Amino acid sequence: MKITLHQTRNTIADFDGILGTIKETITPSSEGVHVFPELYLCGYPLQDLVLQKPFISAYIAHQKKLVAWLKKNITQENLCVLFGGLEYDLSKTGMPISIRNVIYKWESGSGFHAIYTKRLLPNYDIFDEKKYFTSGHEPKFLEVQGKKLGLLICEDMWASAFYDIDPVSDMFKDCEKESLDAIVNLSASPYILGKHQKRIDRAKYISNLFNCPFYYVNKVGGEDEILFDGASFVVAGDNIIAQAPLYEKCDIEIESIPPGSYSVVKPGNKDLSWEDLSWEDLFNSRLDFTHSPSKLHTWTDQDCAEIFKSLTFGFQEYATKNGFNKFTVALSGGVDSALVLALIKLSLTPDQQLEAIYMPSIHSSPLSYDLCLDICENLSVPVKTLPIKFLHSTAKNLFTSSYSDSFEGLTDENVQSRLRGMLLYTRSNQTGSMVVNTSNKSELAVGYSTQYGDSVGAISLLGDLYKSEVYRLCEYINKTYNQVIPEKIITREPTAELREGQVDTDSLPAYEILDGILEGLLNYRYTKKDLEDLGFSKDDVETTFHLYRRNEYKRYQFCPIIKISSKSFGFGYRIPLSKNTDFYLK
Amino acid sequence: MKITLHQTRNTIADFDGILGTIKETITPSSEGVHVFPELYLCGYPLQDLVLQKPFISAYIAHQKKLVAWLKKNITQENLCVLFGGLEYDLSKTGMPISIRNVIYKWESGSGFHAIYTKRLLPNYDIFDEKKYFTSGHEPKFLEVQGKKLGLLICEDMWASAFYDIDPVSDMFKDCEKESLDAIVNLSASPYILGKHQKRIDRAKYISNLFNCPFYYVNKVGGEDEILFDGASFVVAGDNIIAQAPLYEKCDIEIESIPPGSYSVVKPGNKDLSWEDLSWEDLFNSRLDFTHSPSKLHTWTDQDCAEIFKSLTFGFQEYATKNGFNKFTVALSGGVDSALVLALIKLSLTPDQQLEAIYMPSIHSSPLSYDLCLDICENLSVPVKTLPIKFLHSTAKNLFTSSYSDSFEGLTDENVQSRLRGMLLYTRSNQTGSMVVNTSNKSELAVGYSTQYGDSVGAISLLGDLYKSEVYRLCEYINKTYNQVIPEKIITREPTAELREGQVDTDSLPAYEILDGILEGLLNYRYTKKDLEDLGFSKDDVETTFHLYRRNEYKRYQFCPIIKISSKSFGFGYRIPLSKNTDFYLK
Repeated sequence: MKITLHQTRNTIADFDGILGTIKETITPSSEGVHVFPELYLCGYPLQDLVLQKPFISAYIAHQKKLVAWLKKNITQENLCVLFGGLEYDLSKTGMPISIRNVIYKWESGSGFHAIYTKRLLPNYDIFDEKKYFTSGHEPKFLEVQGKKLGLLICEDMWASAFYDIDPVSDMFKDCEKESLDAIVNLSASPYILGKHQKRIDRAKYISNLFNCPFYYVNKVGGEDEILFDGASFVVAGDNIIAQAPLYEKCDIEIESIPPGSYSVVKPGNKDLSWEDLSWEDLFNSRLDFTHSPSKLHTWTDQDCAEIFKSLTFGFQEYATKNGFNKFTVALSGGVDSALVLALIKLSLTPDQQLEAIYMPSIHSSPLSYDLCLDICENLSVPVKTLPIKFLHSTAKNLFTSSYSDSFEGLTDENVQSRLRGMLLYTRSNQTGSMVVNTSNKSELAVGYSTQYGDSVGAISLLGDLYKSEVYRLCEYINKTYNQVIPEKIITREPTAELREGQVDTDSLPAYEILDGILEGLLNYRYTKKDLEDLGFSKDDVETTFHLYRRNEYKRYQFCPIIKISSKSFGFGYRIPLSKNTDFYLK
Repeated sequence: MKITLHQTRNTIADFDGILGTIKETITPSSEGVHVFPELYLCGYPLQDLVLQKPFISAYIAHQKKLVAWLKKNITQENLCVLFGGLEYDLSKTGMPISIRNVIYKWESGSGFHAIYTKRLLPNYDIFDEKKYFTSGHEPKFLEVQGKKLGLLICEDMWASAFYDIDPVSDMFKDCEKESLDAIVNLSASPYILGKHQKRIDRAKYISNLFNCPFYYVNKVGGEDEILFDGASFVVAGDNIIAQAPLYEKCDIEIESIPPGSYSVVKPGNKDLSWEDLSWEDLFNSRLDFTHSPSKLHTWTDQDCAEIFKSLTFGFQEYATKNGFNKFTVALSGGVDSALVLALIKLSLTPDQQLEAIYMPSIHSSPLSYDLCLDICENLSVPVKTLPIKFLHSTAKNLFTSSYSDSFEGLTDENVQSRLRGMLLYTRSNQTGSMVVNTSNKSELAVGYSTQYGDSVGAISLLGDLYKSEVYRLCEYINKTYNQVIPEKIITREPTAELREGQVDTDSLPAYEILDGILEGLLNYRYTKKDLEDLGFSKDDVETTFHLYRRNEYKRYQFCPIIKISSKSFGFGYRIPLSKNTDFYLK
């Protein structure tokens, strides 16, 4: 039996586009089983859209249109199509009482029906599926063209300590007498670094358990913060039969898989210990315990290549879906803005434009100016210099003539940053360009930025990269793209240049220390003591925790951050602002 | 048997403060049953804090300290104390595997034990309890001092179409043979207008069903956006035996309730139809269908008094918990900033300071200036004028000398608003004051504001008030507080004064129309057609829907909004930015 996986790429709620893709893909000569991803018919994640009547009525109309088209045009009997979609129970007033995340099956003989409801609804971190969906209660086997397929939707393939059901074990119990010919998983699975290998490992385990191939189809897309990498695959036992690329629409067509040799595994195999894992255990990269004091895990070149692809893809998706083809980046002469400029430029399409602005203050060094010009020359990006000197002194005069309070220190520093934010957005208004944020995760964690100043932007590319990772990615880009980032930008000491002679280490631990502590705090939720036990100094840990706890308000109003790690600031990070924070320092 | 309800007021994670309150409240002479609210021992809502190891270890240490203190000091046998708290199952590495929202019971004879786990975990709108908690599976009866009490935690008292269990019916089934002496509900129930009456109605129903009194204790607090109003009460049948005030720490002590006459009701009584209701049905106020075209529901004076109390309480809570005692408000001469100024001033404590800034541009009218001065005089608030003329022209020169693109129109308008945002925050830096936002819900809904301009602020007081409600609250304040808001501020035509002669109705439907459409769209999730059927014009509905769908990005980066309605922008409003939005206009 031929199985075709469609690794699709469509915009959320673009019903005409989705129907168009189906019409291009499914033709009167299609045969075998065709599989589209989880919630393909509407897009994912929809969040509250799924509850709004305008969305609901459009979705229902769209599905009716699809079914009418299938009935009229797709009449061959040797075809079965599986679509991820929504199933609604509505009240008399049209409000949803229950919504299910289901697999719809189309066969010309039997028509269009929901045949399976997702059982495990992820509800941790960025996931809120229990807010919207009602879960299914039983495994489902599909008898089609003389074969028997087991069906799963995304999270259903996982088992974990925090779920009280295990769809894979349930399926195993239910098919002990009769074996399966294949298992098919329809996914909309968010990307994070290292997750793909976990998917493959888990799929191999399931394939061996059932003695049949495992088909995994995932969507491609950037939905604000969340990336869907595709990377659909087929495994049979320990062999990878097919592997789709990351972030590209494509199909995997498998004619047939010769009976393979499968390893012997049992459900609940304690060597694999899937059942004891929390999602952090599953998807976190590890702290590198081989150094003392501990440091952040270092990305390999392959990791860097994947992150590069992810960030540029996420940027392009956000820009395109929100209607922007011009981009403005504020350069400082530092490494973050240089990396953002490089990421955009290296992914720019011919119909898009990128420009840089350099906004020096009286504290900006000639070196910064030179480095801005250098990188713009290397990347062929037009740059303008807008000195903020006059605005700065005008603002200062306004204050000193109106108020007797001091204008020195933080006031004088932040006003520079906010003037830049204002100018940047004025330029955005002027040309309709999108301002791309240049903050990194370390800055966000310790609040080393000015609200409405350097923290502005429509989307953050580096908000899930610690400063050490920013450096690592720069290195990789320079190695791969002919040293486009001037070496001096990478080697100079980090400074915000908001006062004379300022360097970041005036107020922060060295970044390689800071980042190790932050990864422990954020990704592993470690205590102060845990981190001291790992070899970090008491002072560094205290400074970091202290800054972290004081700066939730800055993160609260931040723009969407492209997510590449198991814990990113953004939608999946939810900490109350108003609270007592003494416990962090205990 | 004496039952005492403690309507408490503590800060989230303020473990020393919570322990201190318990020590003041529970003494060696306490007797009967003492009841503290849901999750009293830690605070609520905790969101991700509940997952962080620094929080977990501090909480567990705190609970140990409490138990040690109780064992040593509270040894009388005629006392039973019920506390809402957390119960953790931790993995070997200290990560939570399961967390339960429970009732702990202290009795000197038996010690400190979790005796009941919350069964209904609300997960709609602002609630994310299924993200963090594991639900309980059975009703619980507490035998104490010869009496039998039924226990509930907050949401457990509700039944609704979207829950597949009904704790009240389950409890009823389990106690048919033996009757209860009382039902006790430990709550942390967020305020919204009109919700208190629903609580009372539901409690009366349950009290009649069980033929016993119903004790309801709720916490007091402002947690960022969410207000907890307290308003604890005791009902017996259709009678209210006791009613605590809103937003004040207090105790309700009930010696005994004489056997009352209870009405006859049955579980699942279809007259009441609790089971068919969604949470919007339960907690929404109704559109006023008596007018054509439909308008927003109009607040009574009592509603206004409650909203006034809620907003001032929420403001004070946010300020105090985040360490601010100085406040800065930007006045425009319009009604929103006037109302914000009045709300703050009328709730100011002696140790707090409030100041206003008026930042006129070349388009600001003399009337605006006069009205700013008038209201500041009425309220005795110091005001400074910081004209933005020079900054505006300096910015304009910078652009016209650097770029050939036009500076007219939106660019020229927004730069004024952003200069004001910058100046306001510069003043905040200078004095350590908190900037209070002045946007209203209508503006937020249609994006009638400038990002990083007039939309800045630490907290929004009016973000859940439609413009019509802003006017209504001004009227109420003037009636109650001696006309502190100049009449002309209320009667002048709304204008942003960003260009010559601009008025809001240049780009928006009249507010009374706009607000009706917005309430339909947001609170009732209506379609375009639903609203046209209600009598709104096609043009007005289209304009409103069009503006609404284009402006998610502004709402995304907005500050916390004090929530007073069933659907507020903010934490409980989750709409993807990147999407196709054609369906709104279909």
